[in-house]
Amino acid sequence: MHRLTQFRLCPRSRSVRVALSEIGIPVTLADERPWEYRPAFLALNPAGELPVLELEGGLTLCGAYAISEYLAGRSVEEETQGRPAPLFHGSPGERAEQRRLVDWFHGKLDREVTRELLVERVYGHLMAAEAHAPDTGALRAIRANIRHHVTYVNHLAHERSWLAGDEMSFADMAAAGHLSCIDYLGEVPWDAYPSAKAWYARMKSRPAFRTLLADRMPGIAPAPVYADLDF
Amino acid sequence: MHRLTQFRLCPRSRSVRVALSEIGIPVTLADERPWEYRPAFLALNPAGELPVLELEGGLTLCGAYAISEYLAGRSVEEETQGRPAPLFHGSPGERAEQRRLVDWFHGKLDREVTRELLVERVYGHLMAAEAHAPDTGALRAIRANIRHHVTYVNHLAHERSWLAGDEMSFADMAAAGHLSCIDYLGEVPWDAYPSAKAWYARMKSRPAFRTLLADRMPGIAPAPVYADLDF
Repeated sequence: MHRLTQFRLCPRSRSVRVALSEIGIPVTLADERPWEYRPAFLALNPAGELPVLELEGGLTLCGAYAISEYLAGRSVEEETQGRPAPLFHGSPGERAEQRRLVDWFHGKLDREVTRELLVERVYGHLMAAEAHAPDTGALRAIRANIRHHVTYVNHLAHERSWLAGDEMSFADMAAAGHLSCIDYLGEVPWDAYPSAKAWYARMKSRPAFRTLLADRMPGIAPAPVYADLDF
Repeated sequence: MHRLTQFRLCPRSRSVRVALSEIGIPVTLADERPWEYRPAFLALNPAGELPVLELEGGLTLCGAYAISEYLAGRSVEEETQGRPAPLFHGSPGERAEQRRLVDWFHGKLDREVTRELLVERVYGHLMAAEAHAPDTGALRAIRANIRHHVTYVNHLAHERSWLAGDEMSFADMAAAGHLSCIDYLGEVPWDAYPSAKAWYARMKSRPAFRTLLADRMPGIAPAPVYADLDF
């Protein structure tokens, strides 16, 4: 079976797990703590970044970008018996819009929120021998950025069926990868953003999302409604 | 004509300019100062990021990811009379390797070097009414990261004809987009990395690179050998 090396609260790993499940490609999961930079992991991906997908045939794909474009390409259409991979679709302009938003979530949202939040509330906690106190000033800035980004998701979800248009695309999976990590930590103020909340409820109810909702990070309990479909 | 909104020392803008020129698609350039977040620019790209490509037909493509994948796709093959766009090519595995390295340069190198260096040495200078003094501690860390990244480029260039394999790809253009900005500021220790230097000399000698070498940022002179093909 293919093997996906990932971290349970890595947003890019999560987006790829949803994509693989939506396409119908089973994988075994291997957990990696990305801040440890283990030599064996760096031998697999010298960038030291997650996720990494090792295909049965021997090909190793490093990072959500290379993996998602590979999955969107022809080789996987063959692998899935000709079913179109649902990551990017429609006209060139529609696909450009899907990719613009993937870039927004895996680039801008990651830089302005998720990466920093994980450092403050997860990596620091898991690395420290003693209890780790997050930097309250940093958390305040991150929470302000969360509101900006959820406002934008709310706007998109209000205007469209899915974030990039009429159909679900990898843009939804990228957004949900990040927001599910942020939500695990109880940091998404859903009630102020009804369209974003309704969109995320639809993402949560998909079978491909189940394993994410069952994930538990040892030592860090999820927010109470993290796994509830009715939140 | 198509219109590319860009900043002269933006590495992603530069990678796309080289790609457009290699494919043979002429564009007019519009300069944007990305730190100003002008409302008219945010209306074009709400992410506030460069570059943005406005196609004559009315389609707007935001960001190097959406633009490069659009250029790699079928619509541009039509636009270029069936000539294959040289951004990604070969087997699915070869294309995954090209994209892994694009991600390395536009993701990891940007985060660890270029973005911080531009803040310290360009944005700060252009924004400040008075002379701006870069943070020497930050510059020391950036310079250590530059050596790590140029070591990796040197390794790739030593093992392969081009960074991702036998042919030039968007990985080379992404790397050159970043390294040309860093080199403009005189921060690349080329002489310690002969294979990286030989690869960059080949990139510099391509006709598609000429306009980058002619670029001047008002108020910030380039390093003496920035534009020299023999450096």
